[in-house]
This record gives sequence, structure tokens and C-alpha cells, in this order.
Amino acid sequence: PQQVHHPFLSSFLLSFGGLSRCKESLDFPEYDGKDRVHDLNAKNYKSVMKKYDVMVVYYHDHPGSSRVAQRQFEIEELTLELAAQVLDEFDDEDIGVGVIDAKLDKVVAKKLGLEESDSIFIFTDDEVIEYDGELAADTIVEFIYDVLDDPVEFIDNSRELKGFENIEEDIKLVGYFKSHKSEHFEAFADAAEEFHPHIKFFATFSPKVAKALEMKLNEVDFYEPFIDDPVVIPGKPYSEDELVKFIEDNDRPTLRKLQPHNMYEIWDDDSEGEHIIAFAEESDPDGFEFLEILKEVAEDNTDNPDLSIVWIDPDDFPLLLPHWEKIFGIDLSFPQIGVVDTGDADSVWMDMGDGDDMPSVDELEDWIEDALSVDDENDDDTDDDDDDY
Amino acid sequence: PQQVHHPFLSSFLLSFGGLSRCKESLDFPEYDGKDRVHDLNAKNYKSVMKKYDVMVVYYHDHPGSSRVAQRQFEIEELTLELAAQVLDEFDDEDIGVGVIDAKLDKVVAKKLGLEESDSIFIFTDDEVIEYDGELAADTIVEFIYDVLDDPVEFIDNSRELKGFENIEEDIKLVGYFKSHKSEHFEAFADAAEEFHPHIKFFATFSPKVAKALEMKLNEVDFYEPFIDDPVVIPGKPYSEDELVKFIEDNDRPTLRKLQPHNMYEIWDDDSEGEHIIAFAEESDPDGFEFLEILKEVAEDNTDNPDLSIVWIDPDDFPLLLPHWEKIFGIDLSFPQIGVVDTGDADSVWMDMGDGDDMPSVDELEDWIEDALSVDDENDDDTDDDDDDY
Repeated sequence: PQQVHHPFLSSFLLSFGGLSRCKESLDFPEYDGKDRVHDLNAKNYKSVMKKYDVMVVYYHDHPGSSRVAQRQFEIEELTLELAAQVLDEFDDEDIGVGVIDAKLDKVVAKKLGLEESDSIFIFTDDEVIEYDGELAADTIVEFIYDVLDDPVEFIDNSRELKGFENIEEDIKLVGYFKSHKSEHFEAFADAAEEFHPHIKFFATFSPKVAKALEMKLNEVDFYEPFIDDPVVIPGKPYSEDELVKFIEDNDRPTLRKLQPHNMYEIWDDDSEGEHIIAFAEESDPDGFEFLEILKEVAEDNTDNPDLSIVWIDPDDFPLLLPHWEKIFGIDLSFPQIGVVDTGDADSVWMDMGDGDDMPSVDELEDWIEDALSVDDENDDDTDDDDDDY
Repeated sequence: PQQVHHPFLSSFLLSFGGLSRCKESLDFPEYDGKDRVHDLNAKNYKSVMKKYDVMVVYYHDHPGSSRVAQRQFEIEELTLELAAQVLDEFDDEDIGVGVIDAKLDKVVAKKLGLEESDSIFIFTDDEVIEYDGELAADTIVEFIYDVLDDPVEFIDNSRELKGFENIEEDIKLVGYFKSHKSEHFEAFADAAEEFHPHIKFFATFSPKVAKALEMKLNEVDFYEPFIDDPVVIPGKPYSEDELVKFIEDNDRPTLRKLQPHNMYEIWDDDSEGEHIIAFAEESDPDGFEFLEILKEVAEDNTDNPDLSIVWIDPDDFPLLLPHWEKIFGIDLSFPQIGVVDTGDADSVWMDMGDGDDMPSVDELEDWIEDALSVDDENDDDTDDDDDDY
């Protein structure tokens, strides 16, 4: 089979990613230099993809001819090689990794149904799942594990129910059904496959758990991130299509968290080229307090389709923190909220004083309302130093 | 000033770590090829260290002469270069990065008071703080931010109190004092500096917050990870030394979480060459359930000084998951608990069936007791396939 060859890299970076500490149990894997990433083209793609249960395909723009662009792409390939090596060791499924060049092999991408380049697609038995997160080996590999997990998790007892309630950063649904064999459960499981693993689906067959959740038989509840009370999806029992439609109509939460595995997906889902961005460090008392206020704002405004605040915990992106402080002109040692132009990174920020006093829910709502209406009136009226209008 | 030079690497990996997505706000920093990491030796170390507010020093073993070892070390340097570049952009403090070779410059390490090589030390105004976590740029940089944070955080209101209660993975202390000027607060703050940032210190001056915590004036409460009820440190008001002694006597929790920033520190703190390791994925219902059971076991056995269970969430170490499944011979798609020899990775694991039914608290306690007593009787009696004695 044709493969990507980069002898210079593979001989040089034989030990990429590994830092031996003489503790076998904790040794991070080192890239062994073996080429595992397939260069997919019209001749080989069918036979290569047939060999694997799951195929991870990076559909990338053709690398530019500059040395920097070339190196950039070599690093990306190396990241994929490390991911491929780790996935190769994984026993449960045969997982392959390949790349498609958007200039040279557009026709292959087309045959596979891929439209947007510069993304990673995961081909399983019956689904194609897009990954639009950081191109880092650990984040990609973790996402693949999630893909391989069952689309529906079961809540059998009160401890597992507590675990369900503990998940607040993602959209989640829970359904209460008679049993695995229920046709309504089947519709629910089919809908789950459409959104897996981006949206989390749970089911219970336990009347006790259902009682604690105040659910009736065949009911499905939809939870926005960070909002305690669910919406009961109307019209039970539901067909797969009804569930899919409801979720598609409600998949832009009022408050959502930017995470390495979804960062570009969320960034692309802006509103007229802008995002409301809130920085808050959850592990810090001020940050936690601000986040609680944000959650109350989200709860109050959950019916406003225009409002989708992106929460960034700086702890999740330490390498970007100084960059953000510089381009946004803000101090991230305390919480911040602002409106950011997703293109040129122009931004306006709420005046947070010296960070000692957090705004009230009302003050925050007023600021957001002003920020959104100023945007409507005058799209050019956003500049860096006007932060207290 | 003398610096580490690696022209081959710096020209090759000009764009290390960066994956441009044409979205300026989310562009990860790319290594710019500039040498920032100082090679500290007897001649330069004083003048170099004087230049910075904070100095990060990697005291490393002399790299072996094999090509693999050389490359290994070059990757480590590159990781430090990327960290140095990000820290260089950070406005609040001047932060330098240096390396000391344990063979060539042992005398420098000695003058700086460094005994153990293969660790990173952070020199601030008045403390030397050891970092014994993963040698990855993001994890190191995040740790430096924590070092730069104040050693004592304040709880001013009920939302911040909720944030305090939300922290359960670290040892934390909280003190209730009259004001900043209280001599008892000063003793507390001085003790905090000794353990910062490994142990989290909180203080409140609010009678309301103190009432919610059921605390008397000048009282300090000590919280083990994952245990809701604190221990009131006896003998208030305390001197700095009394606080330090109590913490040192109690810094080996019954249940603790392995994290990238503390992984080698925890691994080294074994009991007779062994660790009890529990794998549980918190975001999964089964994993959450098992973790709840583990917390109850920890609560029941908090007074047993021999017991310190290391919890690993596989989500935190995706690249190590297949490696662990292989060397331990276990399936990490459901929770596992076992005893691992920290040297040769020999291990015995509890029989978890097919992962559908979690053991009860009593069953888990019995298993742990057996595992610990078998160890006492016969240290060689641990092999891989004997998992239900």
C-alpha cells in the first residue's frame, strides 16, 4: 500500500513525544519511526479503507510551497503518525489513519462525501463523524475512544444518576423506556448514532431512576449545558426523525465551553462574525463566582436564540493565555467578558475594575444586551479601547 | 550569555506546535526558532538568574551517547524552548528557563541546593518549588501560572464558597481570621508559601462564610482530597511551624488523583515499591459509580496510614491507555483496581466480571485488605494471572 514517506522526519524524530523516566508504567509512547499514515488516492482508497474497522482521515489543504508551510505539514503528519501508532496498539478495533490532499485528490474526497477540507473525518461502519478540534495526538486519540464508545449509556442506579447529573459541559439527553427491546428505545438509540459523540445520550429502564428524574415512560428530556432543568421534548413517543429535528433545532446552547476537541467547531459557529467570549478559571474562587453568574444569565436567557456565550477556562489553554492577553488587551488573572470579531480578533470588553468585584446578574445582562444591540446598529463600532459604553 | 544551541532543530522545527487554521484568536503559538533556554554553568548561573524574577531550571541527567538518547534530549530542550517562548510573552513577570547537566555542572546544582536530578525546579523570590510532572510545554506552563498565583485565595461570599467546595482533587485548607492584619492570618499565609502551589490554601474574613463552614475564629480546617468532612487542626491559634508540621504529617491522602502535573511525584511516593491503582473514567456512569464507591472506602479508611489509593482517569492520559491495557493485561473500557509493582509493572487486579456490576464498598474494602496483607506476607506472590485470591 502507498504510504506517506518522510524518512528525514522519521529518522530524526524516532523518539518524538517520549520522555523516559525509567518508570515503565508511566512511559509515554515514543514514535517508533514506522510509517502508518496512508496517503489516500483514487487507486488505493477503497482497498485501504476496507482493511480497517475505523478509518481516521485528515482531509487537508494542499501544503503551500514555502519551507514553513512544508514543515508545518510534516509536523501535522507526525502528529497523525503518533496517533496512528497509539491506535495501532489498541486491541478492540482495527483503526487506520489516512490523509487526502484537497488539491491532488479532491475526487477521492468527493467520492467519500467530504465537502469541507481542513478537518478530520472518522469513518465507522455506518457513520462519518467530523472532528474539528486541536490537531494534537492526545486530543484526537481521546476523541476516537469516544467514537468507539456506545452512543447510549445506561443509568442503572442512584450513583450512576449522580454521575449523569455531574455532566454539565455538554448537551445531554436522557430517555426512560421499558426495556432494550422497546421500539421507542430503538428510535432513541438511532437518533443517538446521528449525534454521537458530540451529544451525550443516556437511557434508563429503572422506574426508581425515572422517578428521581420525574420522568414518564417513553419521555426524553433535553439538557442544555450548565442549565439544571431540562426541556421535556414534546410529543412522546417520538420517531427517530422527530428526535433528530428537535436536537438540530436546539443545538446552539446559551452557554457553551470551548474545549480542545471542539474549539474550531464552536469558533466557526459564530453570530454575524462575532462571539461573546467569557474567560473564567473554574478552579479559582473569582472565576467560579463569575461562572455561577454566567450560568444564571444563561438560565434567564435560554429562550434567546441570538445569545450563545462561549466560556473559555484559561486552564485548558495555557499556551494561548499570553497570546490572548496580548491580542485582546486584557488581564486574564481575573474573569473577563467581551465581544470578539472572529476574523480580525477586534474586541470590546466589559469593565471589570481590578477584578475584585464581580458584576451582578443584572449588570451582566445589561452589558450583554447593550453589546448585542450596538452590534446590530453599527457593525464597525467595535474597537479595542472602548470598553465601558 | 551562553545558551543551548541546536541549529538543526531550530531551523527544522520552526513551526513546532502550531497548526494554523487562519483564525488568529485560536492560533497556537509556533516555536519561532529563537534560543531562549540558558545552559547554566559555574561561570554564568549567577548573572543569568539575577536577570529574571522567576527562573525555571531543568536539572537533567547527562544525556547518553546513543543517537536515541541525544534526540530524546533535543526534544526535551525543544519542549522547554516552546515553554520559554510562551513565558517570554507573559507580561506580569520576567521568567527565564535554564538547564543544568548533572554530570558537567553538578557543582552549580549543589550551590543552588538541588539534590535530585531529572526534575524541574522553579526559583522565585524566596522559594524553590519542585515540579515532578510530565515534561510537556502546556503542563509546565500551567504549573508556572499556578506558582505565580497568590498562595492564599480568599472566600468572600456564598458563590466563592461553592467554588471552594467544588475543589475535591487536591489537599486544601481553609482558615477563618479577623482580617489581613491578624498575626494568625500571617502565620497561615507563611505556611501556605511552604506548600504552594501543591496544596491549596484559602482564607475567609467573613463571619457568614465562617458560619456556613461551622468555623470558629482563628480555626484552620484541613481537607483530604475526595473527603467532604474536614479535620479541624488542633491547638488554635497556630504558629507557622505547627501548621507546617500538621500538613507534613497528613500529606499522604487515602485517595489521590494522578494528574500530568504531579504524576512522577505521586508515582515515587509508593508503599514498599507498590501502588494500589484504580482506573475509573469520571465522565462514564460506571466509572463515576466506581469512583463514588472508592470515595466511600477512602472515607471509611481515612485513618489508615498504609492506604493511599491512586486514582487514574484514563481520559487524562489517552496516549497511555493502550500501553496500560497491554502491560497490566486489563480492559480499560470499564473500571479496574489492582496492586502494581512500581518497578517492573507486575500487577494483580480485582475480578470485575464483565464490568456490569460494581463491587460494594464492603467487597472493595475486603479486596484491598487481602491485597495489602498478602503483600506483607509474601512480596513475591504477585503475578499477572492470579486475580481472585
